Amino acid sequence: MTSNNLISREIQLASRPSGEPVAANFRLAEAKVPEPAEGQVLVRNTWMSVDPYMRGRMDDAPSMILPPFEIGAPLEGSAIGEVVASRSADVPVGALVSHFLGWRDHAVLDAAGAAVIDTSLVPAQSYLGPLGPTGLTAYAAVTDVAPVREGDVVYVSAAAGAVGSVAGQLARTLGAARVIGSAGGPAKAGLLVDRFGFDAALDHRAGPITAQLAEAAPDGIDVYIDNVGGDHLEAAIGAMRVGGRAALVGAVSGYNATAPVPGPSNLFTVVERQLTLRGMQVSAYFHLFPEFIGRAAGWLADRSLRTEETVVDGLDQAPAALIGVLRGANTGKMLVRLP
Amino acid sequence: MTSNNLISREIQLASRPSGEPVAANFRLAEAKVPEPAEGQVLVRNTWMSVDPYMRGRMDDAPSMILPPFEIGAPLEGSAIGEVVASRSADVPVGALVSHFLGWRDHAVLDAAGAAVIDTSLVPAQSYLGPLGPTGLTAYAAVTDVAPVREGDVVYVSAAAGAVGSVAGQLARTLGAARVIGSAGGPAKAGLLVDRFGFDAALDHRAGPITAQLAEAAPDGIDVYIDNVGGDHLEAAIGAMRVGGRAALVGAVSGYNATAPVPGPSNLFTVVERQLTLRGMQVSAYFHLFPEFIGRAAGWLADRSLRTEETVVDGLDQAPAALIGVLRGANTGKMLVRLP
Repeated sequence: MTSNNLISREIQLASRPSGEPVAANFRLAEAKVPEPAEGQVLVRNTWMSVDPYMRGRMDDAPSMILPPFEIGAPLEGSAIGEVVASRSADVPVGALVSHFLGWRDHAVLDAAGAAVIDTSLVPAQSYLGPLGPTGLTAYAAVTDVAPVREGDVVYVSAAAGAVGSVAGQLARTLGAARVIGSAGGPAKAGLLVDRFGFDAALDHRAGPITAQLAEAAPDGIDVYIDNVGGDHLEAAIGAMRVGGRAALVGAVSGYNATAPVPGPSNLFTVVERQLTLRGMQVSAYFHLFPEFIGRAAGWLADRSLRTEETVVDGLDQAPAALIGVLRGANTGKMLVRLP
Repeated sequence: MTSNNLISREIQLASRPSGEPVAANFRLAEAKVPEPAEGQVLVRNTWMSVDPYMRGRMDDAPSMILPPFEIGAPLEGSAIGEVVASRSADVPVGALVSHFLGWRDHAVLDAAGAAVIDTSLVPAQSYLGPLGPTGLTAYAAVTDVAPVREGDVVYVSAAAGAVGSVAGQLARTLGAARVIGSAGGPAKAGLLVDRFGFDAALDHRAGPITAQLAEAAPDGIDVYIDNVGGDHLEAAIGAMRVGGRAALVGAVSGYNATAPVPGPSNLFTVVERQLTLRGMQVSAYFHLFPEFIGRAAGWLADRSLRTEETVVDGLDQAPAALIGVLRGANTGKMLVRLP
């Protein structure tokens, strides 16, 4: 197979959303796929990742680490695919690779941007979830950004999500005495306890999170893994013990906001209780991927790390998947399977 | 001299303020001074410290590290005095000591709570300012909480105050490339540059601090020492470069607030730029006092550390001094001199 005259479907940004994205902000288009140049590979994508952070790239926001998506150009994101043409000795035809050019059926990229994956122990799509950037995010959060220590009480928001579900389980592995998670709705809250082994689950749709957290952690918390921001961050700060640590990983509650969202009104507690709030970008931890994948593949294989996936079929469904992940429609990792 | 039948004047908390404290919240009263017990000393106070954080202790706020002041009991705070009676071999009559029972003419306390001070190089009241908890606060902020590194751009709010003026000068000593301070009014702003050696001064009464900070630090800042909170914290977060660090030392802008004050609306920048916001209490650094006093006494003696004092005379003026320090009436350390 050659890429000559190959046409690939792709999801382009049609317009920038105001508030919640709508279908009209995306366009399914076709584009001619170039021939791979020397050192490049042609990949047929089989899975792509859909992540809340992508909402930020739909805005024209110059402060992002990753640049804004461009109107009329395809979106980007983590993906898995099979190499169908190669001009690189390192990445042969037939290899399964993870890379960053999702949102399209076929991609041409430099071989250096394609990591060959090992599916002998785990399914390929694990490299988008627990073994991918979301898993590494959770790992960095609980080991470096807000390190969990033996005996800690840990609270994780969006704990049924791809990052939160892994973070809570890793916190336990690191010796947390009690792990509390929050999620939206009784089904997800139940999953936290039954499948992911959390000690307590809060359903933020059932009432104010502050009161629920106070009940679940009457003596306070030491570590907070924040995927939500807003009320959850305020509740966590209010529940922190002296020396507490928060990893600010994401703030999905504010991604669709059309006006600035005020921060927590209890920030002085950060002074009083000597708290640390630390933001993170997973790209700062990519050098840990080999170490992390080695450890986490073992945890997945022996079932000590449990995961969930929400799978949507077909590239044309990817925009709805992104709109959904921002509403919490997913349990665990939101994935699009490409035929 | 014995303390038998000794009557001391003291400032008591008469009632808890709502918003800004008023004179009626304080009461000048007399109380009988007990005889020092074995291991105790009787101290005649000569200087006392007036600090913004004391406002928090006037509320009935259980989350403070230090407990609330009690209605009908004297206030407390750092003070300097002369030992006039002693039942401790460690702290003889005639010694000058720093201790924590200010807001009264005479105090009886355990000798272990009285640190003998050395006034051979510096005046006694320095142990309430640059060599006291405020100086140590500045030292901890720039060396540990938000460590300043060679080449950093540093911004300090309330920079004409007791903590800020020292923090800015120490940041320079630690290798900061540029030190920016903010203060209220042109006189204080001028002092930052002329006396304390800041590179640029912002006058927060002259306009929005965000625009002034952007102009003074067009390429952003690396470290922020926050004594103010509110708009200053939001401006600093907005100006932070990737990996920036903020020491949350105080939040004087909110101490008199009667309702919760919303936090900065740009907290997501903490995630995007991998910032660290860390709160501190100086009590966690008291073990560094010997090291700090040794270094800072030398800096004061050779004039490489410059300070200012605002001195008020008489115990009866102490309430007005506290009301004033919360309004920014002071330049440098706010002190009450006792006759």
